[in-house]
Amino acid sequence: MYLAKVYVTYKESILDPKGEAVHDALHRLGYTNVDSVELGKYFEIKLTAGKKTVEAEVDEMCDRLLANVNMESYRYEITEMEA
Amino acid sequence: MYLAKVYVTYKESILDPKGEAVHDALHRLGYTNVDSVELGKYFEIKLTAGKKTVEAEVDEMCDRLLANVNMESYRYEITEMEA
Repeated sequence: MYLAKVYVTYKESILDPKGEAVHDALHRLGYTNVDSVELGKYFEIKLTAGKKTVEAEVDEMCDRLLANVNMESYRYEITEMEA
Repeated sequence: MYLAKVYVTYKESILDPKGEAVHDALHRLGYTNVDSVELGKYFEIKLTAGKKTVEAEVDEMCDRLLANVNMESYRYEITEMEA
């Protein structure tokens, strides 16, 4: 069994209103030393090896479902889990 | 300037309907080797040192705003950014 940790964030040029809202809320709570906040998605996917390599499959899942590649970029880490 | 990467996920006992939906969608796309999916939030926070240590501040932000500690757990990594 493998564990894939996938991080999906907006691309640089894309407005991140939720991140802005969190930034403003942190400032209102007194954390005025916070410069910027970006809010993304985080997936923990447990999977067994399929037809392709685990890495190829996770990459494909990101492109097809997990990220909107027009607006978002993704990165992932894959580790083998102990049985 | 510091970069804090904060990961917020549901606690074990809490139902994760979005993760379930992604799991089901991946199965429909043919990734039947996917065992489970958990969907969490991922924050990238850039901040300067405030009154307390950066670690103490990020911990406090998680408790006060970023995570609902009744349902969610969090972890974070803090790195110093090059100026």
